Amino acid sequence: MTGSPFAALVDWGTSNLRIWLVDSQGAVIGERQSPEGMGSLEKAAYPAVLEAHLSALGAPADLPVVIAGMAGARTGWREAPYVETPAPLVGLFQHAVQPEGLSRPVYILPGVCQRGGGAFDVMRGEETQLAGALEQGLDDALFCLPGTHSKWALVEGGQVRRFSTVMTGELFNLISRQSILRLSVPEDGDAEADPDIFDAAVAQALAPGFALTSVLFSIRAESLLAGQGAKVNAAARLSGLLIGAEIVAIRDDLLRHGKAYLIGTGKLTRLYARAITKAGGEPILLDGGLLVRRGLLASALSLFDHEFKD
Amino acid sequence: MTGSPFAALVDWGTSNLRIWLVDSQGAVIGERQSPEGMGSLEKAAYPAVLEAHLSALGAPADLPVVIAGMAGARTGWREAPYVETPAPLVGLFQHAVQPEGLSRPVYILPGVCQRGGGAFDVMRGEETQLAGALEQGLDDALFCLPGTHSKWALVEGGQVRRFSTVMTGELFNLISRQSILRLSVPEDGDAEADPDIFDAAVAQALAPGFALTSVLFSIRAESLLAGQGAKVNAAARLSGLLIGAEIVAIRDDLLRHGKAYLIGTGKLTRLYARAITKAGGEPILLDGGLLVRRGLLASALSLFDHEFKD
Repeated sequence: MTGSPFAALVDWGTSNLRIWLVDSQGAVIGERQSPEGMGSLEKAAYPAVLEAHLSALGAPADLPVVIAGMAGARTGWREAPYVETPAPLVGLFQHAVQPEGLSRPVYILPGVCQRGGGAFDVMRGEETQLAGALEQGLDDALFCLPGTHSKWALVEGGQVRRFSTVMTGELFNLISRQSILRLSVPEDGDAEADPDIFDAAVAQALAPGFALTSVLFSIRAESLLAGQGAKVNAAARLSGLLIGAEIVAIRDDLLRHGKAYLIGTGKLTRLYARAITKAGGEPILLDGGLLVRRGLLASALSLFDHEFKD
Repeated sequence: MTGSPFAALVDWGTSNLRIWLVDSQGAVIGERQSPEGMGSLEKAAYPAVLEAHLSALGAPADLPVVIAGMAGARTGWREAPYVETPAPLVGLFQHAVQPEGLSRPVYILPGVCQRGGGAFDVMRGEETQLAGALEQGLDDALFCLPGTHSKWALVEGGQVRRFSTVMTGELFNLISRQSILRLSVPEDGDAEADPDIFDAAVAQALAPGFALTSVLFSIRAESLLAGQGAKVNAAARLSGLLIGAEIVAIRDDLLRHGKAYLIGTGKLTRLYARAITKAGGEPILLDGGLLVRRGLLASALSLFDHEFKD
């Protein structure tokens, strides 16, 4: 049993748009998903795309909207400047911006940036997932969000203290499809098909003195020397080396926290869970869609709950 | 004053062909260079291409030929199987193969491979440069050969003990032109234009706990956060991180030997020299063309000197 529409919650990323119509308890009245992400939209197209989806959901004309993600980038709909680390996950709404000329209240939440110590980094959308995790009590935890660009975030006392974006997925694609290693990594190579090889590669990456770029070519040389007969699962090896090399950088945090909250689904997330275990951590899976909805709802309640208070 | 032609020495790589006509002292009577490398040749085309260049040089019809490089690969003219590490640099000629059906003696020298400890690797052509360096007394030394795929080789007692191929140049091209970092690294970016940034990136890579893939994205984030005004030499930074990450893997050898013999020319070699210095080593430049010629001559003298002995 859901109540009347309270707000529309929107996760508007580079390649995807998700909208949930929720009541004031966060129960979902209706939802839509579309490939109309920032990557395929002109700035001028945002209002019409949003209204079309809201109309299809039967949203009232004055229903307020809260948006997280790349819609707030400089090249998105309207820039919502980054909140700098250490960034409190409660109160992100205070930094929200409102696109002009709309007939309903629309707020775009900020991203988070990091400047300290030369480790420049940015996130847009993940901070709202982390705010959602905070709503379920995770105020001191290590998070991992696998993807083309994976992110690791250390949350302490409800603040994003440090985070790091790692181009592991993009590097896997470039190296396996376009470098000399493409001759050894089959296009349909399945890194999950050979867990022993994946595990051994992760272990190699975790060993002291590991240097990723000095090891990559051995994948090509091994297949050259093995000849036609021998089968080497080069996809499993490359994937294990890259994910292992990524975990090395946060291993101290991982061992201190013990658990790593893994936000994602599918094969890539399973590989990360495997590698985290191998590194001595305990992976705990969280549903990213649910988290971003919780995070958006928290902001919506802060922005729009005056009608309940008044 | 040169003597009569003794042999033709050929360096036949993936993208280049170089031929020297020499007398028995190694003095150059004539030379030619062409882009007819293995990458652009069918197997059947090798004899005619060779004869055309020999004829243009006025080589006698029975002049013997020694070839090093990718012509000896499985997919080249005729496979010259690898000599395995530890590989003596004297006596490579003993493993040379002769293509069939030719009217003159033609020998293709072997490459060197490494199977030990999972560090599979292969070289073809570089071993002949190392044999040339041996001729000038370098029988215990660390060598670095920068390139699209750079190679580091440790020679001890006149043997190739260990070596490593690092895809630094190829990774630089893929990352700077095709990954998300392409938005931050200008196509005409000159890594030499900003030595301070290059040096700082090398130093970062050499510091304990460095993890390359966890640092790369900061190049993109820095340019996003710096805005339009600030200029960041992302090419210098990416180049320094990659070359530094490569040197980390051989740093123990570098500090033990003190010197690194750097075989190459041009901008890339200068960047390697700079990074080696930064890592506490002393780079000493050697001329690769001269070395391969010396190495080929040593094999030619062993293969063909019977006329002087008889």
